[in-house]
Amino acid sequence: MKWNKLSVRCTVETQEAVSNILIENGAEGLQIEDEPTQEMVSLDTYFAEDFDLIPLVARIKEQIANLAEFGLDPGDFQVGTEQLDDSSWADEWKKYYHTTRISRYLAIAPSWEDEGSFDAQTTLIKLDPGKSFGTGTHPTTILALHGLESVLSGKHESMIDVGTGSGVLSIAARLLGAGHIEAYDVEDESLKAASENFALNYCFADINLKKNDLLNDVNGQYDLITANILAEIIVPLIPQAFEHLKTDGKLILSGIIADKLPLIQETLHQHGFEVLETMNIKDWYGIVAVKLQNS
Amino acid sequence: MKWNKLSVRCTVETQEAVSNILIENGAEGLQIEDEPTQEMVSLDTYFAEDFDLIPLVARIKEQIANLAEFGLDPGDFQVGTEQLDDSSWADEWKKYYHTTRISRYLAIAPSWEDEGSFDAQTTLIKLDPGKSFGTGTHPTTILALHGLESVLSGKHESMIDVGTGSGVLSIAARLLGAGHIEAYDVEDESLKAASENFALNYCFADINLKKNDLLNDVNGQYDLITANILAEIIVPLIPQAFEHLKTDGKLILSGIIADKLPLIQETLHQHGFEVLETMNIKDWYGIVAVKLQNS
Repeated sequence: MKWNKLSVRCTVETQEAVSNILIENGAEGLQIEDEPTQEMVSLDTYFAEDFDLIPLVARIKEQIANLAEFGLDPGDFQVGTEQLDDSSWADEWKKYYHTTRISRYLAIAPSWEDEGSFDAQTTLIKLDPGKSFGTGTHPTTILALHGLESVLSGKHESMIDVGTGSGVLSIAARLLGAGHIEAYDVEDESLKAASENFALNYCFADINLKKNDLLNDVNGQYDLITANILAEIIVPLIPQAFEHLKTDGKLILSGIIADKLPLIQETLHQHGFEVLETMNIKDWYGIVAVKLQNS
Repeated sequence: MKWNKLSVRCTVETQEAVSNILIENGAEGLQIEDEPTQEMVSLDTYFAEDFDLIPLVARIKEQIANLAEFGLDPGDFQVGTEQLDDSSWADEWKKYYHTTRISRYLAIAPSWEDEGSFDAQTTLIKLDPGKSFGTGTHPTTILALHGLESVLSGKHESMIDVGTGSGVLSIAARLLGAGHIEAYDVEDESLKAASENFALNYCFADINLKKNDLLNDVNGQYDLITANILAEIIVPLIPQAFEHLKTDGKLILSGIIADKLPLIQETLHQHGFEVLETMNIKDWYGIVAVKLQNS
């Protein structure tokens, strides 16, 4: 499989904003390289070759130029693309993608990293960016992982992971002691990546991976539902999640920007959930909610 | 030692608000008992016998009556007091105080609870309310504990626990692998409680407990500083914490109400910290910040 590399060179001042622009345009991971002068940085990301980069590049250029409206000077930025084959892409990633500690007892590492630097208490999730086109270390993922750690108790909870993507939340839940796990995604590319990552973490047999749109055609009630997806998709998911959670079941939501937080909170309240904890990293919010009782 | 029990009987509608009133007036733990009709609840809390309850009761009555201004009906509430000796107080607590799971790998239990229900991966903090007059399960404590779990990596971090109170954060940090720990409190009663709880968790020898006001007379720079105290005290603590943290050192703050959050965030920013994560449970906020570099 071939990949397209999209690179943006921008000022340090606009780095955060440009990162957000790239992520909002579908980038699932970013390589960030500072330049020696510390005035400019390069942000690289990757798209599958069938992804049409021409309109994307035009849109990104326009959005970066528009940063001036927000008082940020985009300066002399550049946006470029390059086609890579699978092997050179993996090599590129290896330069940038290292182990990330998520918490005291949870870390994410690519398969090529040495595990020797972790103590026996650390649960290590193996996640290859070359397979999942996501690093597992985006704030939305970290928030959802913190939520999982707050909620799971080692009692073999049943769960559904809506929009599993790279599969990272299902893997983490399994390694943290969840029992029966259903992992759904509507994208074939995600199903393939999740499948490969499940195998990498030896939990392929423990997770039922299925192509599914949100919680359609699901039966039964579960202990836990996770959804690290866009806020626009979370809103219609909430009543579905209520239906498929046991009383006192938990709902972990991530991928929420500040503007959408009140809408999500209000929708949860309307549909019989109580918010237990809200977490915020950079521009992203995560929520742990509980289903109060069956209606 | 004798204790005074303060009891409030109030409507379920005002339970949350009355709980906050009690906590803001110094209650460090609450026993909540629903009545069979589910219309009224009883909230009990305890104060040392030298604490003057007469003005406190008057203030609490006034504050509950004032809830009507916020659209809450205080109804036919009652506030009463009762003197207990040490033994009957402990017995009272045993009825209400059970194990609380803080996260997948962390739980708090009183010394009389059976440990058998926990898996080997769970780190259990022993904390007797009869000794510490706090249950360790208040939202501000849970937020600080979640912060500790996010930040610690098992690399024997050095830390200072400002306003250690019952000692719960120092104990958790030690059990999670922190190395050298300094635990400070300005109150003699807290030092006594912390000391007893350190002994209960077999980490008495690993924590240097000292009477100290904030970070006065501290030398050196540490990996981590925790402070689960009032926002008014956190503000002057922030520049002190900057001075006594290494570059990239973390500051975990808790005990912050919504009104004070912007002030704390702004003060952190002014003094060279970046906020990494903000957490919210009920009316309380916790912050994990990092010291960017030595000024």
